[in-house]
Amino acid sequence: MAGSRYEYVKNFERDEVLLHNCWVVVRVDGRAFHQFVDEHDFIKPNDKRGLDLMNECALEVCKNFSDCVVFAYGESDEYSFVLSRDTKLFNRRQAKIITSFSSLFASNYVFLWSRFFPDKALKRPPAFDARAVCYPTTENLRDYLSWRQADCHINNLYNLCYWKLVESGKSRTEAEKLLSTTLSQDKNELLFKQFGINYAHEPEMFRKGSIICKVWADETKKDEKTGQEKTRKKRRLRVVYCDIIGDKFWKENPEILNEES
Amino acid sequence: MAGSRYEYVKNFERDEVLLHNCWVVVRVDGRAFHQFVDEHDFIKPNDKRGLDLMNECALEVCKNFSDCVVFAYGESDEYSFVLSRDTKLFNRRQAKIITSFSSLFASNYVFLWSRFFPDKALKRPPAFDARAVCYPTTENLRDYLSWRQADCHINNLYNLCYWKLVESGKSRTEAEKLLSTTLSQDKNELLFKQFGINYAHEPEMFRKGSIICKVWADETKKDEKTGQEKTRKKRRLRVVYCDIIGDKFWKENPEILNEES
Amino acid sequence: MAGSRYEYVKNFERDEVLLHNCWVVVRVDGRAFHQFVDEHDFIKPNDKRGLDLMNECALEVCKNFSDCVVFAYGESDEYSFVLSRDTKLFNRRQAKIITSFSSLFASNYVFLWSRFFPDKALKRPPAFDARAVCYPTTENLRDYLSWRQADCHINNLYNLCYWKLVESGKSRTEAEKLLSTTLSQDKNELLFKQFGINYAHEPEMFRKGSIICKVWADETKKDEKTGQEKTRKKRRLRVVYCDIIGDKFWKENPEILNEES
Amino acid sequence: MAGSRYEYVKNFERDEVLLHNCWVVVRVDGRAFHQFVDEHDFIKPNDKRGLDLMNECALEVCKNFSDCVVFAYGESDEYSFVLSRDTKLFNRRQAKIITSFSSLFASNYVFLWSRFFPDKALKRPPAFDARAVCYPTTENLRDYLSWRQADCHINNLYNLCYWKLVESGKSRTEAEKLLSTTLSQDKNELLFKQFGINYAHEPEMFRKGSIICKVWADETKKDEKTGQEKTRKKRRLRVVYCDIIGDKFWKENPEILNEES
Repeated sequence: MAGSRYEYVKNFERDEVLLHNCWVVVRVDGRAFHQFVDEHDFIKPNDKRGLDLMNECALEVCKNFSDCVVFAYGESDEYSFVLSRDTKLFNRRQAKIITSFSSLFASNYVFLWSRFFPDKALKRPPAFDARAVCYPTTENLRDYLSWRQADCHINNLYNLCYWKLVESGKSRTEAEKLLSTTLSQDKNELLFKQFGINYAHEPEMFRKGSIICKVWADETKKDEKTGQEKTRKKRRLRVVYCDIIGDKFWKENPEILNEES
Repeated sequence: MAGSRYEYVKNFERDEVLLHNCWVVVRVDGRAFHQFVDEHDFIKPNDKRGLDLMNECALEVCKNFSDCVVFAYGESDEYSFVLSRDTKLFNRRQAKIITSFSSLFASNYVFLWSRFFPDKALKRPPAFDARAVCYPTTENLRDYLSWRQADCHINNLYNLCYWKLVESGKSRTEAEKLLSTTLSQDKNELLFKQFGINYAHEPEMFRKGSIICKVWADETKKDEKTGQEKTRKKRRLRVVYCDIIGDKFWKENPEILNEES
Repeated sequence: MAGSRYEYVKNFERDEVLLHNCWVVVRVDGRAFHQFVDEHDFIKPNDKRGLDLMNECALEVCKNFSDCVVFAYGESDEYSFVLSRDTKLFNRRQAKIITSFSSLFASNYVFLWSRFFPDKALKRPPAFDARAVCYPTTENLRDYLSWRQADCHINNLYNLCYWKLVESGKSRTEAEKLLSTTLSQDKNELLFKQFGINYAHEPEMFRKGSIICKVWADETKKDEKTGQEKTRKKRRLRVVYCDIIGDKFWKENPEILNEES
Repeated sequence: MAGSRYEYVKNFERDEVLLHNCWVVVRVDGRAFHQFVDEHDFIKPNDKRGLDLMNECALEVCKNFSDCVVFAYGESDEYSFVLSRDTKLFNRRQAKIITSFSSLFASNYVFLWSRFFPDKALKRPPAFDARAVCYPTTENLRDYLSWRQADCHINNLYNLCYWKLVESGKSRTEAEKLLSTTLSQDKNELLFKQFGINYAHEPEMFRKGSIICKVWADETKKDEKTGQEKTRKKRRLRVVYCDIIGDKFWKENPEILNEES
């Protein structure tokens, strides 16, 4: 065949395979989203439309790879997808996995944009980078997810204070300086005393981030013969907002990580 | 800080760095495009609108990474981007590079769709996988590009025969069987004798694929003082269709790979 | 400094790090030992002196890396060293670990040769290659060790039959052919009926391979004051020969893999 | 087969392949040689016996892998082996290559010890770590070798000054402090003025390190018929001491790196 003289160049390709029997986390991350968010006038510090759009993109990714993704967690412009320990997706080839996830997320972002921002034109299509990380134990994976949720909390508390201060007339530099020495409790107090905000009453979506997984949900169906309505519990893919650092969530949903409850 | 207890999980991350002083090729590839193309009724074997859209996405990627990408070659549902030997893009981190390219390509595909398919709604957003390959010498890189252009030729000739046979009433299985034993010259002859097609007269875009690079172009500018028009040669990013297997193109454009001409 | 102009070449170096929190197995393997063994007239199928030498080399490696190696298993010309999940040895850099193990094993092989082969000069120094493999769970690690011990058993049974047949006058080709269709029980029967050998009575070192780990051992010490002898149990590094496929060994020695017993 | 249930553990193995068409440098390095050298009372700053032993080990490695190794350079307790761009050794598997080199070097070190240190018993067998680095161009490779030879020069000049100062009665701390601010020319002057040493007259082996490669050598052979002696030039593996930073050596030996001279 005419092409065969050149085919030796395929030998330069290499496929990194993710270690077997490890949890795989694929974290997708908006590229230069700081700027993207400014260009599109997102509400600060949290724009519910933007987060809903992120969640919808993540849901699409979860559905597309429903055999593999068992859990997803999103905050800000990032989303982490947890693939089951024994996933055979693309034979665990790292490059295939991360590029498929990042590109599907990005193309959905553009595709779904107008549903969440009906009055605002998308000025340019964004990019999302992605990486895959292997975690050998469920404890390591839980710690990863805790790390992201703690990060969400820390950033959100900070950002809320920051934007309230800026709204109230402080310059950005002043706000930064003011917050630079504060602890969590100081920020809670500042919000309460100065702005009358009880942080604990802020929406869970903002404070906890978004979780996508199959949870038990009541499903009501009419029995075709008797006409009676029956309610059954089924596991359904849902976006939920709750704490995943403590054990409660995982004890209530032992099927997700397949742990003995 | 509250998150610090979990931060050890970052140690599980690893960054593969692409070998220094090698040409880097990032090849982006449509995922399951066979099916995508059917769903959207692309013209077989080549849909100019689809190829133009691919080219426009690639152009956007080239502009976004204009410091690094020195050449791009596309055919069918794939595009290869050549990064300069000394690129510092993302410190040559493989995962960052391939996910940024694949996701930017994919988001542009959706963003630009309606410009090329004004009458056809995009049914679902596609994914593109990507890989990066290092080539130590310019000869290896040229052979890579020759491999892809030879592949384009081989596939295009085959596909043209195949679809002409199907159009003419053969079943798909018959067409496949008929072509399975043919050489290039047989296919040329079949096209000419049976369908009156001179393959050499088919559009270069189909036969050669698409090339994106800076080529010398005449640029005419009116002198503000004298009002006279002046034509100067400038290197401009363009899509061109031509042979890149032979030396001619590279001798005429020695700046692309920075070879001594 | 004079050298600085060239120091950029260090950027081409890369360090692959073994995934955290995984068991690491370093398997050292004699290079072309078939030939080495022939050159030095080893007794077939098992030369106790050769195996004792392997064990002594492995012991030296275990002592040299006593903080990290928790278990070692040897058979024939190979030795597997198990590093603890949390080992920080050379910051888990793969190249450092495998080359240190292989070279220390090889240099000890030469150094200790004359102790085990006092009447036989070493004709040439051997090489040992090595590889590192990560195992995320204790189950995977146990299965790895079972795989090696099963391999030891299978090879040893085969080799015993083979060499007995050759001793008895069969050609090597005849012996091979005769054994090619036999199952384990056939081989046991052949040994018993034809050569009066009860395989189960063969030395455990040959049938089970060699294990190096800390086991509970009685240690007797004279009390300096009272002059009375006291016996205490202590964990001591030992070579033992026993089954490690079943649970018994691991239940008796839960400290090795730090499992809850 | 009995073992098959466990064989899945092989899937956890991975083979990193060194990039094709790159020069491969395998650098072997004595582990904790500072201490080893003290234990064996090596002469400071250079012990010719020790360097000769290193060279002999390297020669053995070169002979063992004569198809692949085209050049070797040694200084102090390290040796760099250059493998040809197109070497197929172990299918370019990194782990196989570096462990074979490190272990063969180490086993030879013990094997050959008594030839170079006939009056001194080897107290313990040393380990050598190793790494492999890919260099895409001959320029990169030449710069690597220049880097090592510059390093040799810098260290040797420093060490000579240091040990002369210590011999002359300075404490180690004083010597270190005294040298910490000196440039090359200061050290040359110190040697000359204080110790009457012209550094340029020091043995080339110490100042330049050791090179192993095939060089043109006269070979005299008696013609069997005529009884006349004939001298012919042949390329023979030799240890030589000379500058490899400048172009002279490489111009005189263009066959080594297969460059057009």
